[in-house]
Amino acid sequence: MRAFRFLSLIMFHTVFAFSSSLSPLVASGDEGMYLFNDLPTQQLKADHDFEPSEDWADHLRLSSVRFNSGGSGSFISSDGLVLTNHHVASDTLHKLSTPERNLIDDGFLATSTDQELKAPDLELNQLVSIEDVTKQVNDAVDSDASAEDAAEQRRAVIARIEKASKDETGLRSDVVTLFGGGKYHLYRYKKYTDVRLVWAPETAAAFFGGDADNFEYPRYNLDATIMRVYEDGKPAKLDHFLKWSRDELTEGELVFVSGNPGRTQRIFTVAALKFLRDDRMPYVLDYLRRKEILMQQFGLEGGEQERRARDELFGIQNSRKAYTGMLAGLQNPKTIATKRGREDRLLQAISEDESMQALASAWEDIERIQAENREMLGKTVSLRSTLFEIAMQIVLLTAEDAKPDEERLKGYTDSARESLLQRLLSPAPVYADLEQVKLADELSRQIESRGAEDALIVEILRGRGPRERAAELVTGTQLADVAARQALIDGGLAAVLASDDAMIELARTVESEYRRLRKRNEEIEERERQAYAKITQATTAIEGTGGYPDATFTLRLAFGTVKGYQEGGQYVEPFTNFAGAYQHGMDHAGQKDFDLPKSWMENKAAVDLDTQLNFVCTADIIGGNSGSPVVNRDGELVGLIFDGNIQSLTSDYVYSDEQGRAVSVSGVGILEALRSIYGAGDLADSIGK
Amino acid sequence: MRAFRFLSLIMFHTVFAFSSSLSPLVASGDEGMYLFNDLPTQQLKADHDFEPSEDWADHLRLSSVRFNSGGSGSFISSDGLVLTNHHVASDTLHKLSTPERNLIDDGFLATSTDQELKAPDLELNQLVSIEDVTKQVNDAVDSDASAEDAAEQRRAVIARIEKASKDETGLRSDVVTLFGGGKYHLYRYKKYTDVRLVWAPETAAAFFGGDADNFEYPRYNLDATIMRVYEDGKPAKLDHFLKWSRDELTEGELVFVSGNPGRTQRIFTVAALKFLRDDRMPYVLDYLRRKEILMQQFGLEGGEQERRARDELFGIQNSRKAYTGMLAGLQNPKTIATKRGREDRLLQAISEDESMQALASAWEDIERIQAENREMLGKTVSLRSTLFEIAMQIVLLTAEDAKPDEERLKGYTDSARESLLQRLLSPAPVYADLEQVKLADELSRQIESRGAEDALIVEILRGRGPRERAAELVTGTQLADVAARQALIDGGLAAVLASDDAMIELARTVESEYRRLRKRNEEIEERERQAYAKITQATTAIEGTGGYPDATFTLRLAFGTVKGYQEGGQYVEPFTNFAGAYQHGMDHAGQKDFDLPKSWMENKAAVDLDTQLNFVCTADIIGGNSGSPVVNRDGELVGLIFDGNIQSLTSDYVYSDEQGRAVSVSGVGILEALRSIYGAGDLADSIGK
Repeated sequence: MRAFRFLSLIMFHTVFAFSSSLSPLVASGDEGMYLFNDLPTQQLKADHDFEPSEDWADHLRLSSVRFNSGGSGSFISSDGLVLTNHHVASDTLHKLSTPERNLIDDGFLATSTDQELKAPDLELNQLVSIEDVTKQVNDAVDSDASAEDAAEQRRAVIARIEKASKDETGLRSDVVTLFGGGKYHLYRYKKYTDVRLVWAPETAAAFFGGDADNFEYPRYNLDATIMRVYEDGKPAKLDHFLKWSRDELTEGELVFVSGNPGRTQRIFTVAALKFLRDDRMPYVLDYLRRKEILMQQFGLEGGEQERRARDELFGIQNSRKAYTGMLAGLQNPKTIATKRGREDRLLQAISEDESMQALASAWEDIERIQAENREMLGKTVSLRSTLFEIAMQIVLLTAEDAKPDEERLKGYTDSARESLLQRLLSPAPVYADLEQVKLADELSRQIESRGAEDALIVEILRGRGPRERAAELVTGTQLADVAARQALIDGGLAAVLASDDAMIELARTVESEYRRLRKRNEEIEERERQAYAKITQATTAIEGTGGYPDATFTLRLAFGTVKGYQEGGQYVEPFTNFAGAYQHGMDHAGQKDFDLPKSWMENKAAVDLDTQLNFVCTADIIGGNSGSPVVNRDGELVGLIFDGNIQSLTSDYVYSDEQGRAVSVSGVGILEALRSIYGAGDLADSIGK
Repeated sequence: MRAFRFLSLIMFHTVFAFSSSLSPLVASGDEGMYLFNDLPTQQLKADHDFEPSEDWADHLRLSSVRFNSGGSGSFISSDGLVLTNHHVASDTLHKLSTPERNLIDDGFLATSTDQELKAPDLELNQLVSIEDVTKQVNDAVDSDASAEDAAEQRRAVIARIEKASKDETGLRSDVVTLFGGGKYHLYRYKKYTDVRLVWAPETAAAFFGGDADNFEYPRYNLDATIMRVYEDGKPAKLDHFLKWSRDELTEGELVFVSGNPGRTQRIFTVAALKFLRDDRMPYVLDYLRRKEILMQQFGLEGGEQERRARDELFGIQNSRKAYTGMLAGLQNPKTIATKRGREDRLLQAISEDESMQALASAWEDIERIQAENREMLGKTVSLRSTLFEIAMQIVLLTAEDAKPDEERLKGYTDSARESLLQRLLSPAPVYADLEQVKLADELSRQIESRGAEDALIVEILRGRGPRERAAELVTGTQLADVAARQALIDGGLAAVLASDDAMIELARTVESEYRRLRKRNEEIEERERQAYAKITQATTAIEGTGGYPDATFTLRLAFGTVKGYQEGGQYVEPFTNFAGAYQHGMDHAGQKDFDLPKSWMENKAAVDLDTQLNFVCTADIIGGNSGSPVVNRDGELVGLIFDGNIQSLTSDYVYSDEQGRAVSVSGVGILEALRSIYGAGDLADSIGK
C-alpha cells in the first residue's frame, strides 16, 4: 500500500526532511513525477505521440485532490463524489468505528446522502494555482548569513508570502521547496473539510491477501472507497471531475497518474544513500518492528483491543514491508555501484571545468552532514502517543501565538492555523488503554536512547518505571476531551502555564529540549538545501535541463504504459480479473487473510468473472500516490493506484521499469463490484456524471 | 515458558558468559537455587521444620534429568518414563513432524512401546556425582599470567580434568564454574541418547492462551509431555524415579523444585546491570523482534510454511516477552536504587577494613569491562541458520581435531565430542526455504553491523545482495544431507579444505574472524571471573557465608510454599482447575489462541472439573527450570514447573516473593487429563511405578 501517511509515520520530527532532495534531471523510459506547470510535453510527443492540451492538464489537476492525511484522490461526479483507496480512507473508517459499528470489518454503504458519515478530521486539497516565488525567497536570505540565520530568514519570508497569499485569496497557501532548494513555488489550494463517507468495502476485499500479498503481484484487491465533499452542509457542486471510462484497458495503452507522491530521494549523493543504508533504514526498521510487536500484543488481549490497534498496526506493517524492500535494494552492491558511477562521471566533468570547481565541495558538504545526521538519529523527545502529541501541540501553539507570525515554528503560523486546529480538535476517539501501552513503550525507548540517568529522563519519570508513569500520565490528563483542548487553546499561554494536566506538564518538561533539537535539525537542513542547490546547478550544467524535482507530497503528473514483466523466468500478465480473485482465495484456503468476505461469496454468481480487477503500468509513483486516479489519453478514469510491486520499492532512490510496476484497481472492476457485489447500482450510475 | 533453550537462543556466541556471575550470599524468604552438595539444611529446618535426609536428596537428584537442549525433567517410572514440559519437548515434536503428521497441532499418544517415536537428537543427563576441583584448576593458572594466558591455562586444565574423568568413568564429565570463578566442580552425568516420545497433548492445550497468556496467571495449561529413555533398544530399567502423589495440593504446603536453572545475574554489580539495561537488553530485544517478524512473514506464505517456522517463532516470542519484562524491571528506577544501596554498603565496609581495600578495585574492573562488552555487543560472524551453524561446526571440529586436546576450543574437546556429533549428525529435517530467508536476514544484519564496505562483507557477499547470495548458498550446499556432513567429518581438515560446498566455503571465509572474536570474548570473561572472585571474597567476608551460586544450567534444589498473591488490589488464588480452563476459553471466544482442542471439548463431560490444573508457589526458578518436577516433603511428584508469572521476570537479577511466583501444572491435573481427555488410562496407571 502506498499511502504516505504510513511511510511518514516515523518521519515526524526527525532529521530527515523530505524537501532535501534534488531532481534526477535525466529521466529514462517512463520515469518522472512532473510538475503541472512544467509538463514533459516534448517527451510525451516523442515517446508516445501525445500532446496534452492546457485544458486537458488543467482539468486533470482540478479533478485531483490531496488527502492531507497522506494520500491522493479524485473528484468523480458533479455532486462531490471523491474516489480514493480504502487504505487511505481507513484512518477515517477506524475513527468512525465503534465496537458496535465496525466499518473496517464490515464496510459501509450510504443509500442516501443523509446516511453519509462525516469524517472527524479530514482535509482535502484541490490545487488551484502555482506561482514561482524563488526570487522572493532567495532575496530575503543574506548571502553571507550563517546556516542558522539563513534558516530563520528563509522561514520568515516563507511565512510572509504564505500569510499574504492567504489574506488575499482566502486559499490555503503553501510555499513548496523544490529541487532541494533550487526553486520555491507557492501552491494555493481550495480546502474541503466537510468530507463524508459514502461507500467502503470490507477490509477482507480491500486488503485481500493481507500483509503476505502486500507489494506483490498478481493482486486481486478492491482497495477503493468513495467519499463526498460538502460545502455549507450540502454536496459540493463541482465544475471539474473525471469522466469514467467504461472500457477495459488494453496492454500497451498509455495512461497518466495525477497524484501526490510523498517523497523520493533520487539524486541523493552516494554518501547520503550510505547513511540511509547503514544507519537510517536499519534504525527505522528496528523502530517499526518494535511498534508492530507492541500493537500485535495489545490486540491479543481481546477482540475490542484488536479493533482499536488494527489501523495503526496495518500502517506499521505496510511501512515495515516497504522499508525492508528498500533496504534490500540498497544493500545490493549493484545499487550503490550504479549511483557511484554517475557521481564519478559528474565529479570528473566538474574537475575538468574550472568555472564549476567551486561546486564540487557540495558533495563533501553532504558527506559531512551525514555524520551529523547519524549523530541526531533517534534524538527526539516526541513521544508517539495521541495524547502526548496533542499536549505538545497545544504547548507549542500557545507559546508560538505570543510571537510575531514570521518568527513562529513551521506549522504554527497564521496560514497553517486552520489545518492545525482541525487536527487538534478532532473528535476522533482516543483509547486510554492503547495510549497507556504506547506511552509506556515510548518512555522505555527514551530511557534506552538517553540512558536512565539522563537529567531529563529523571524529570520525566518522577521515580517511576515506564509502565507506572504511563498509567499516571494517561489517568492524569483531560485531553481525550475536545472541550479540555479547546479551553487550553482559548486560555492561551497563561492557561497552559497554570495547567496541572499531567500530559501538558510532561509536554512543558520536554519543550525546551524539543525546541533545541528542532532548531538543530533545521540548521542541518538549511546546509543540506544549500549543498543540494549547488549540486543541482552543477548537474544541470553537465547533464542538461528538463526534468522533475524529487517528490514533495504535492501534485505531480506521471505517465506510463500498461505492461506485464518477466519474473523468475515467467511472464507476469498485466491484468487480473474477478475469477482470479476467487481462485486465489481457494488456493489459500485456511489462511485468514485470504478469506473473501461474505458479500463476495454470496454474490459470486452475479459477478462477471472476466472483468478486469487489478492491473500494472510503468508510471513512476511512490507512497502518497495511493488513491491517485489513472486516466487515459482522453482524461477518463481507468484505474486507481493502490500499490507498487516489490521490485518498485527501490524507486525511492532509483526508478526502473524493468520489473518495477505501479499497481491499480481497474475502473471497470470498481463498477462491477459496486453493481454485482455491493448492491450499489445507483452509486455506480451516478459516477462520472 | 521457562525453557532455557529459548532464552539461550540469542546467547550463543555472544559476550555474555552465564558463568560470570556470583552468589547472592544472603538469601531472603524462599530465595535460592542450591547445589545438591551444599543444601540449605539449617534454613529448611528453621523456616520450614524440614530436614532432608541424604537419601531423600540423592533419590531426588537421581530422579531428575537435564534436557541438554535446554530444559529439565524427571524419571517417573521404573521402565524409563520421563516427564517434561510440552514446550521443552516441542523442539523434538517439531522435528518429528511432517506435513502429514503434525504432532504440534494434533498431539501424540503411543499405546504400545513399538509406537513410541525416537527423538532425532535428544540427550538427557542424569547427575551421578559432584566433585570439588577448585584447587586443581586454580593451581594450574599462573598467578601473574595475563588474562589471555590465564584463560588458556584454565581452559587447558579443565580439558585435562574432563578427559581424565571421562576416560576413567565413561561418564559425561563437565567442569562447572561456580560463584563467578570462586569454585570449580566436576559434574559427572549418565547420558541417555535414545529418547522416545510417548505422549504429547495438542499445542492448543499445552499453550492454551498463547502469547497473550504467557507469563500471566491464573493459567490453565497442560504444558506436559511424556517420553521414555531406552538403553540397548529397550526401555531403560531405572532404580530412581519419582512416586506420584494422588492428593491435591493445599495452600501453604512446602514444595521442592529439582531442576536446571539456566542463568541468573543476581549479584551483578550496578555497572553490570546498567550495561544490561542500557545496552544489552535493548539490543537483544531489537534482535528478537526482528526475528519474530521474519518468522511471522515466512509463516504467512502458507500453511506448510507456518508449520515449519512455528517452533522457532514460539521460542522467539517467549524470549521477547521475557526480556521485555526483565527490561521493564531494570528500567524501574527503584531496581537499580536497591542494588546500589547494597553495593554502597559493601564498598563502605570495605573502605573501613584495611585488609580488604585491595578488593575494592574489582568493582572498578567490572565497570571497565562493561565498556568492552558494549564495544563487542553484536560483534559476531555466527549467522543464525541451521546450515551455516553445521558448516561452522564442521570447519571448527576438523581444525581443532588437529590440535592436542587441551588446546582445543571449549566444546571441541574429546570429552565433548559425543554430544557435539550427536547434534551435528541429527537427521532432523532442514527446510531450504526457511534457511534461505533466515540466512538472507543474517547477511543483511551483518551488513548493518559491519557496514557494506567492510572487507569481510565484500568477501561474503561476492557482489550479490543478501537475498541473492542466500539463495546461492542454500542451493550450493549439501549439508542438509547427514551423509555429506559425515563424509566431511570423516575426511577431516583435508576434506574441508578441498570442499567446494558453498556453506563450508562461507564458514571458512569467516573462520579467522570467528576465532578472533571468540578469543577476545574469552579474555574479557577471564577478567570478569577474576574480578567476581574478588567480589565474592569481599562479600563473604562482610555478609557471611552460606548461599548459592548464580544459576549455571546445572542441577539445583529450590523450595517454596504454595501461595497466592495480591495484584491490583485483588487476591490471586494459588490454584486453577479444569472448570476454569473451559470458562477461560468461553471468555475469549473468537480468539484463536483460546480455542481448546477437540479432545477437551468432546470429553468435557468425563472430566472432573474441580481437579487442580495449575498452581503457583514461591520457589526460586528461572529459564531452564522448565519441566522440573515439583515434589512434596515425601519426595512425591505433585507438579511440573512450566513458567513464572510476569512479576517473577526480574528474578534474573533479584528474587522477590511479594508477587513473583513459579507456575506449575499440577500432578493430579496431568493424571486427570490422561485418563478423561486423552484415553491414556494405561499410561496414567503405569506412572510412579
